Amino acid sequence: MTPDIRINADRMHRAFDELAAIGATGDGGVDRPTFSEAHLAARAWFRRQIEQSGLIFRVDGAGNHSAFLPCGPEGGPSILLGSHLDSVPRGGRFDGALGVMAALEILRTVQERDLRLKFNLEAMDFTDEEGTLVGLLGSSALAGRLTQENLREPRGGRDRLLEGMQRAGLTELGMLNSGRPAGSLGGYLELHIEQGKRLERLGRNIGIVSAIVGIWSYRLSYVGRADHAGSTTMQDRRDAALGAAAFTLAARQLLMRDFPDCVVNVGRMEFAPGAFNIVPARVDVSLEFRSPDAAEFEKLNKALLTAAKEQADRYGLGLDTADLGRHDPCPMDSAVQQAMTAACEDLALSYVSLASGAGHDGQSLAGLCPVGMLFVPSVDGASHSPREYTAWPDCVNGANALLQIVLRLAS
Amino acid sequence: MTPDIRINADRMHRAFDELAAIGATGDGGVDRPTFSEAHLAARAWFRRQIEQSGLIFRVDGAGNHSAFLPCGPEGGPSILLGSHLDSVPRGGRFDGALGVMAALEILRTVQERDLRLKFNLEAMDFTDEEGTLVGLLGSSALAGRLTQENLREPRGGRDRLLEGMQRAGLTELGMLNSGRPAGSLGGYLELHIEQGKRLERLGRNIGIVSAIVGIWSYRLSYVGRADHAGSTTMQDRRDAALGAAAFTLAARQLLMRDFPDCVVNVGRMEFAPGAFNIVPARVDVSLEFRSPDAAEFEKLNKALLTAAKEQADRYGLGLDTADLGRHDPCPMDSAVQQAMTAACEDLALSYVSLASGAGHDGQSLAGLCPVGMLFVPSVDGASHSPREYTAWPDCVNGANALLQIVLRLAS
Repeated sequence: MTPDIRINADRMHRAFDELAAIGATGDGGVDRPTFSEAHLAARAWFRRQIEQSGLIFRVDGAGNHSAFLPCGPEGGPSILLGSHLDSVPRGGRFDGALGVMAALEILRTVQERDLRLKFNLEAMDFTDEEGTLVGLLGSSALAGRLTQENLREPRGGRDRLLEGMQRAGLTELGMLNSGRPAGSLGGYLELHIEQGKRLERLGRNIGIVSAIVGIWSYRLSYVGRADHAGSTTMQDRRDAALGAAAFTLAARQLLMRDFPDCVVNVGRMEFAPGAFNIVPARVDVSLEFRSPDAAEFEKLNKALLTAAKEQADRYGLGLDTADLGRHDPCPMDSAVQQAMTAACEDLALSYVSLASGAGHDGQSLAGLCPVGMLFVPSVDGASHSPREYTAWPDCVNGANALLQIVLRLAS
Repeated sequence: MTPDIRINADRMHRAFDELAAIGATGDGGVDRPTFSEAHLAARAWFRRQIEQSGLIFRVDGAGNHSAFLPCGPEGGPSILLGSHLDSVPRGGRFDGALGVMAALEILRTVQERDLRLKFNLEAMDFTDEEGTLVGLLGSSALAGRLTQENLREPRGGRDRLLEGMQRAGLTELGMLNSGRPAGSLGGYLELHIEQGKRLERLGRNIGIVSAIVGIWSYRLSYVGRADHAGSTTMQDRRDAALGAAAFTLAARQLLMRDFPDCVVNVGRMEFAPGAFNIVPARVDVSLEFRSPDAAEFEKLNKALLTAAKEQADRYGLGLDTADLGRHDPCPMDSAVQQAMTAACEDLALSYVSLASGAGHDGQSLAGLCPVGMLFVPSVDGASHSPREYTAWPDCVNGANALLQIVLRLAS
């Protein structure tokens, strides 16, 4: 049996609200992109919280900030709890922040009860989970997986990365040497908002994450011919817009018919030359798709590329396909999922097993230690938006469930 | 009977080639956007040609450059011949330039024969036909139709317009006061390349333009909701891309089925927020359509707006519709078309009546005097491109036809 203890919900609420005020956008959201002034202010505030609590403050070469509680064997492995304090531009106040505040509160709760566990505990704020600069930067570094390549062509641009690192007092060498030794981690656990509507729709308190989806991105370029849009008949055109439009509709149909557990997004198109009076010569399509299952992931990839080519052929267009990279689907540890189920039953919380459609730092750590994630409901599924909201009792349920899981795994 | 005279094809060829070297891009094209260095150099060259020919050089407050030949009654009306020396960025060497060179050659031919006609002749290079800054700027000014409004929000941007005007030594006041008095023009005639494939496909020498199409532009904005592209199911999305894509395909179908003489173009889409991992909240569609017939123009407008709304409803999206303005279809003068037919028959040139899918300066002048246009074949229909090409014998045919028409109308 695990001890019948609960987190201090009022203390967590005060901390959550103080944090939400840093970089607040006035509409319920926060603007704390990685290494922005507001992000660094949130980290400074987190450090003060840790030090005032009597926990040990740590920061590594990748800028990951953490609270350490030596409640286990000296020099022994830790269970890492965490999430991130950075946000997307004009994002919500729950994404990442809730997980860090819950982790901190769990360390405070264990600390004030003076519990002795099989593991030490560490509550971490990972650097750049949202990928303003690199994407899962801090967790990749901590897992020893960050490469010079990752830093050389960051998705946010090299100049912006270097400028941000300077502001945060970080170096490339430090980042590349932030890997934790094998055996130093007993597990990684994260509480996060769902960012979807499934828990709300099913009326469940807790989502036990079965896997983090794989994400694959492409740039598909339909290539036609620029012609005068007045003097060229409809029949004579090789209009790149037609291929891009037809693919967008075909991809959706394909997913809804054959891949019910997957999603696809055409998030952007760029038209060239892009004038009212010129038939589009080229349309670049930003394509992304996700699957929780490795075999489906490959099948979906083939089906989408086939559909893309079919639409190009149909309208007499060329098709250039640039693979922009993939993260494979990442199953969560089954023993951790069992502990989560037991914890929910202990606490009389309703739960359901589901895949995470979003990427998370746990992906980086999956090879290093057992990884697990818990979700709490997102009202209306809103995410990466100031409309993002989770009712406070749900946040408390999530934190208490996480505490029980820690105690199960560490007692 | 009109005199059995012909233009000097060699002289016109030399002039055409000299002009094509100004702003040449090395791939057969020219880059002479309005008031660029190359454009002003072409105008200076045109002035020298006029003065060396013993023709009278004129320039008005809108920068329209012309050669004047007093071959008719002193102080009497003129037949205006012309086109433009500006090009689209990296355009072709025939569009506009051929019409100005043919007009100049006709004045030289009439001058060296010392013909006395019922009208004086003027060969004009209009300012900014291509609309780098305003669109039909010079011809609108000459027709007394240019407004302060036109200059206040030019499509090329106000700063660029003012900067160009300064370079060309022009003022707003001068532009707004360049209108020709009523009765000063006996007609306006223009030779132009077809910019389409119809003459080539039909194997005809000359296109007699029946009308210049009307052009109507809209910005259609499909409005959905930005959601996380990983954690939002396909069913839960309000994806603005779907409306934009479905409309693009529906518009094409509608045109090909019900409006065979019209064309439609979706030349650009802009996605917001425009990220791989966010469901598009808004897609702005640049829509333009054209019709040679006023009644069809209105019918097509209604049909397209209905289709736009249908696709919005189908995908649960909002639709904002911004009317960006229209130019009505402009029928060519019927007496001028009859003179063109007769001239082609005199010269044993095959011909066909067709609408111009592109806009031209004649539209501006249609209320002021009888207007007519002749087309010569464009190889492969290429236009606004360095690939633009018309075989030299076709250019000569066009210039000789234009000369015969002038003689018919002015004898």
